[in-house]
Amino acid sequence: MTVTDGSPVTIVATDADDQPRRTPELEELYRGFESELLVPLWTEIGDLMPPTPRSKAVPHLWRWDRLLPMAERAGRLVPVGRGGERRAIALANPGLGGRPFATPTLWAAIQYLNPGEDAPVHRHTQNAFRFVVEGEGVWTVVDGDPVAMRRGDFLPQAGWHWHGHHNDTDAPMAWIDGLDIPFQHLVESTFFEFGPDEVETRETPQRSRSERLWGHPGLRPLTHLEPTPATPLLAYRWEYTDRALAEQLALEAEGHRATVEPGHAAVRYTNPTTGGDVMPTVRAEFHRLAPDTATAPRQEVGSSVFQVFDGTGQVTVGRQSWSVQRGDLFVVPSWQPLTLATEGGLDLFRFSDAPIFERLHQHRVQYKETAQ
Amino acid sequence: MTVTDGSPVTIVATDADDQPRRTPELEELYRGFESELLVPLWTEIGDLMPPTPRSKAVPHLWRWDRLLPMAERAGRLVPVGRGGERRAIALANPGLGGRPFATPTLWAAIQYLNPGEDAPVHRHTQNAFRFVVEGEGVWTVVDGDPVAMRRGDFLPQAGWHWHGHHNDTDAPMAWIDGLDIPFQHLVESTFFEFGPDEVETRETPQRSRSERLWGHPGLRPLTHLEPTPATPLLAYRWEYTDRALAEQLALEAEGHRATVEPGHAAVRYTNPTTGGDVMPTVRAEFHRLAPDTATAPRQEVGSSVFQVFDGTGQVTVGRQSWSVQRGDLFVVPSWQPLTLATEGGLDLFRFSDAPIFERLHQHRVQYKETAQ
Amino acid sequence: MTVTDGSPVTIVATDADDQPRRTPELEELYRGFESELLVPLWTEIGDLMPPTPRSKAVPHLWRWDRLLPMAERAGRLVPVGRGGERRAIALANPGLGGRPFATPTLWAAIQYLNPGEDAPVHRHTQNAFRFVVEGEGVWTVVDGDPVAMRRGDFLPQAGWHWHGHHNDTDAPMAWIDGLDIPFQHLVESTFFEFGPDEVETRETPQRSRSERLWGHPGLRPLTHLEPTPATPLLAYRWEYTDRALAEQLALEAEGHRATVEPGHAAVRYTNPTTGGDVMPTVRAEFHRLAPDTATAPRQEVGSSVFQVFDGTGQVTVGRQSWSVQRGDLFVVPSWQPLTLATEGGLDLFRFSDAPIFERLHQHRVQYKETAQ
Amino acid sequence: MTVTDGSPVTIVATDADDQPRRTPELEELYRGFESELLVPLWTEIGDLMPPTPRSKAVPHLWRWDRLLPMAERAGRLVPVGRGGERRAIALANPGLGGRPFATPTLWAAIQYLNPGEDAPVHRHTQNAFRFVVEGEGVWTVVDGDPVAMRRGDFLPQAGWHWHGHHNDTDAPMAWIDGLDIPFQHLVESTFFEFGPDEVETRETPQRSRSERLWGHPGLRPLTHLEPTPATPLLAYRWEYTDRALAEQLALEAEGHRATVEPGHAAVRYTNPTTGGDVMPTVRAEFHRLAPDTATAPRQEVGSSVFQVFDGTGQVTVGRQSWSVQRGDLFVVPSWQPLTLATEGGLDLFRFSDAPIFERLHQHRVQYKETAQ
Repeated sequence: MTVTDGSPVTIVATDADDQPRRTPELEELYRGFESELLVPLWTEIGDLMPPTPRSKAVPHLWRWDRLLPMAERAGRLVPVGRGGERRAIALANPGLGGRPFATPTLWAAIQYLNPGEDAPVHRHTQNAFRFVVEGEGVWTVVDGDPVAMRRGDFLPQAGWHWHGHHNDTDAPMAWIDGLDIPFQHLVESTFFEFGPDEVETRETPQRSRSERLWGHPGLRPLTHLEPTPATPLLAYRWEYTDRALAEQLALEAEGHRATVEPGHAAVRYTNPTTGGDVMPTVRAEFHRLAPDTATAPRQEVGSSVFQVFDGTGQVTVGRQSWSVQRGDLFVVPSWQPLTLATEGGLDLFRFSDAPIFERLHQHRVQYKETAQ
Repeated sequence: MTVTDGSPVTIVATDADDQPRRTPELEELYRGFESELLVPLWTEIGDLMPPTPRSKAVPHLWRWDRLLPMAERAGRLVPVGRGGERRAIALANPGLGGRPFATPTLWAAIQYLNPGEDAPVHRHTQNAFRFVVEGEGVWTVVDGDPVAMRRGDFLPQAGWHWHGHHNDTDAPMAWIDGLDIPFQHLVESTFFEFGPDEVETRETPQRSRSERLWGHPGLRPLTHLEPTPATPLLAYRWEYTDRALAEQLALEAEGHRATVEPGHAAVRYTNPTTGGDVMPTVRAEFHRLAPDTATAPRQEVGSSVFQVFDGTGQVTVGRQSWSVQRGDLFVVPSWQPLTLATEGGLDLFRFSDAPIFERLHQHRVQYKETAQ
Repeated sequence: MTVTDGSPVTIVATDADDQPRRTPELEELYRGFESELLVPLWTEIGDLMPPTPRSKAVPHLWRWDRLLPMAERAGRLVPVGRGGERRAIALANPGLGGRPFATPTLWAAIQYLNPGEDAPVHRHTQNAFRFVVEGEGVWTVVDGDPVAMRRGDFLPQAGWHWHGHHNDTDAPMAWIDGLDIPFQHLVESTFFEFGPDEVETRETPQRSRSERLWGHPGLRPLTHLEPTPATPLLAYRWEYTDRALAEQLALEAEGHRATVEPGHAAVRYTNPTTGGDVMPTVRAEFHRLAPDTATAPRQEVGSSVFQVFDGTGQVTVGRQSWSVQRGDLFVVPSWQPLTLATEGGLDLFRFSDAPIFERLHQHRVQYKETAQ
Repeated sequence: MTVTDGSPVTIVATDADDQPRRTPELEELYRGFESELLVPLWTEIGDLMPPTPRSKAVPHLWRWDRLLPMAERAGRLVPVGRGGERRAIALANPGLGGRPFATPTLWAAIQYLNPGEDAPVHRHTQNAFRFVVEGEGVWTVVDGDPVAMRRGDFLPQAGWHWHGHHNDTDAPMAWIDGLDIPFQHLVESTFFEFGPDEVETRETPQRSRSERLWGHPGLRPLTHLEPTPATPLLAYRWEYTDRALAEQLALEAEGHRATVEPGHAAVRYTNPTTGGDVMPTVRAEFHRLAPDTATAPRQEVGSSVFQVFDGTGQVTVGRQSWSVQRGDLFVVPSWQPLTLATEGGLDLFRFSDAPIFERLHQHRVQYKETAQ
């Protein structure tokens, strides 16, 4: 699908000639519009109807080595408990006016829990997940099921399920929360309820009940045969993700089609009851670039947040470029071209709002031929 | 589904005790957050996670007898053509900072075309429709198919289809445009392309080709057997809508279940290839209240815009109440209770963003037992 | 999709060399198989796994002028009532061993009701419909809703709905019943229940309640928003079918794509809640050939029954050819090529088992280039 | 859902009074029907429309210790190769007239391959799978991907994929094939093509490429994002099935809902791209009964074949009862009540035609409260 060159519409949006001449009668009409709470299309169309998406969000990188110390200081100064609910510190995209929005639809925050602390139980319509770039020791209790959190694990926690966290070790733990808070805030669909101040159980099993029921490839318990909007599997363990990626690269080396592009392995986390995305508004994936790999530029409707899980590389989003390393987080606004490159190899966790656009038939993706 | 009483969380959002004490160290931490483009959850949660949706939009009524004269004056002062594209004047919800947004997701505007005028051809990803409360004489040409517009007709025009309008009569015509412009603006999925400055055809048939192919109840042409995201039927004529509503009330009178509630008939405009909504982001319905009918209060996630098509009545949205008559437009923000009442009978066109919430599993509706 | 030439496998199926030599040991093994209720694949594969479907059913034509008199004589000799349930006389395909099966999956029968007679109320899991080639005067009462039957009407009546018929005129009436009796008999899914001996109501309205609720193009009552497995519309009236076909031919004449092939108009009867087939196992269509039209040969997995509604023509199915006229019924077995031709014009009603194959991913269609 | 008592309709079907008296005129009419290839409903209705399904198939048990020796003798006497294609010996239900049909829809056979033998490559529209009750050493090569077969493995192989087998060990191997051959034979949808006489590859990897791509719980390769009608996972290994069942029983013991009924664990093999059945016409499950467990009687539309994988128990189907042990196969015809009981524990593989009925909205299941 080709997209028109932006320039003519840029002119539309900016060139005064394009607007009717400001006669006294017109000025009076415009004043009339104001008093009647009306706004004409012809003065707004350039902003409202650009030739391609113009994101207010900007590409931006947050360094883990700046983020983590902030969370640690918050751990010393800010209690966690009822009311504030979570010791979570959100990425605020510089293009979005200081709101805690990584992109117009996505929330990304670092959450921090000290030894012995509880994050109280609540539920909300926002879809959430946790991703662990390092550390362990916290259990998130979802509808009474304790789920261990460890490096590399992806832990979805869909809307309107009760959940709280507790740290039963003697070390603090930090992780990343991803949610659709900005989206639900914009479209005004948010519900929230308090639960108990403490988690229902302090059990610390290595595997949650949901994993024991659902964590077997292609097997479904006969007790749960209906599709559910969100995944019933509460933990996607690193051991499986790592193996799936390693085997894609091995299959490629053996001459079989298994990777997205040469040297680029990727898996999507899915809902085993449908084969689709883990949650109705959030897509989550893990990408692995083999050493000396560069991806082709890619543009997509909707926004993404990436976190570097391992390795180092160069990331280019639109006109921005960064060298990245473990824990660094960056955002890709709607329709901004993304390129990834690495010498030593690069592992990346990604989440995005793509399911929103696919379900509403607004999704578009565009690949450029090859990196120039 | 019961929803928690808002007060505790209101406290969360406002009560200073609920926040950590503002020590110098904390102030310094907050400054650090700012410089690192971070925002804590605990200072924002009251706004971001209310117990039930708190719409920034407010209930508001626009009177047709104020709106139409504005459009007529614009018809004299403002040319229609390339660049501005349409002589459309949008409702700007007083709660939304002067933007041309009737609600956070929906655009509603009056469009006006003088005798002999063309609205130039373009296409965009926004889903659009026209509804005609009075007058006729304009043909909208969609992908080359000329569609007559007449009082009571609903004319969907889904995203990314070429369309322009022309008025070949000697009288001006005004109608209502509905689109998902604010939604696509917020989520940044907008594409736009220019077409020819004049419509492809000046034919003025009474029935469009789409009606001749698709306008037969329960019959589908064998040339088009795949489901399409939006309806292929480009005109839903008043004659059918009126009859469907009249028959629901007649069936009710004969003792059969056919109405939503006593005296309240309603139809939804649907896509004949799926039986679902006419467009992926927009729901359109027509409601008829028999004389001396009052509806039960109803709350729904997502927002609606209503236009009075005929009759008079009393409308209550949240704490607002109005007496309404032909052409008046009002908005119902997310989760605000709506009640309709009439003595002489009331016909209402409604459109909403409900498909967004249903497709993303965020939809909720709540009926109160009866008006207290 | 190309299909392999049958000959090699024909050899497999018939050539004795292809079978292991009949040594005494082998004979003994085969006797052992028999006593253990076992059958080897290698002796059966030619019949069980042909290169393309080999239908046991054969192409056959039943002449209306022979069928109708039989029904009239049955009307004089055979009472209709509880036990026998219906005065229905079924087509028995000569290839199917004298069973009342038009094809291996489809039942087609002529039903006949005298003035004043009732066909008693019952329900069954079989999906049924009636199609009227001539006459009127009978009402079929479905779940208490009286549905008039008239020439050209298609009247679906999905599985497990109560139904009976009554003739309140002073003239007898005959029509065609179509059901999936053979299919459900083969797969053993049949349930049946008796209802009252007389229909619940003797009302004779021109339009059923279902038409008044559902018979408006693209409009859906808000009281019924969930998809249903079968259509809620109980009558597809000739007036609409005729107009839809006429307009397809008119659009073709105006240079627009609207017909299946030149001069060949066709509509499918659909379920307005899904846009799909009227019933889970039965497809129903109406085809109109303009004068001097011939269709390209067409092969399809699954079987069809056609009834000539009007006009005359030549029908070729496999190696069979017939001249046909009003009321004549013929069957098209699975994968047998069908060609239709007419000089004066030909209207055909068709029903088939295609939804079974589409839902089970077994459907295939093949068009040959053009009629030789 | 309650089902009517069968007796009244049994009477309908058998009581001569129920038929019109055999006058000479009626006899003549019946002769007329015959000559015109017609059959009346009223003489057939008892057989065609019973109150509940009356399967022609009967409950039957095949003993593994009789079946396996037959296969071994066939291994000595019957070559495997082009034409016969497979050394497969099918269960012939005594109720189905000697055809190789385990039930009216399902094929079940023991297949046997000697050391060094190849079963030649072909493809067919029938959906197939293999299940291994004992032994190993054969690789089935599906579209060029070699898949090891070992005890406890379920190996689906959906319609129209190329496949052959080879035994590269020095021991023979036997296993069970399940297919929908009878169903596709009845509905006449069968296509078949020959491939090479030898498998494309003699590689003998422990894990197939499909497992390396798809065998990771909840993870999907980004190279394959579209749903497919049948599972892309070609091996469901015993290690996972065994663990899933063990954990259901462990969760039950811990007081959580995880089993179908007390002591009865069960998993369904599913298509990871949809969460649904592995193939469009075939359901496959594995059931484990803990020691001293008895199941409640269960009736279901459609038929099943079970194979005992391990343990011993008592099986009751309708009026038949058997003591069963490893390898024994038994069939459950449509709507026949099934009860399973064990003292020492019982592992059962099951396959059925349930997807056919679910997709066609003909499925019914009935549980009796408890065994009387």
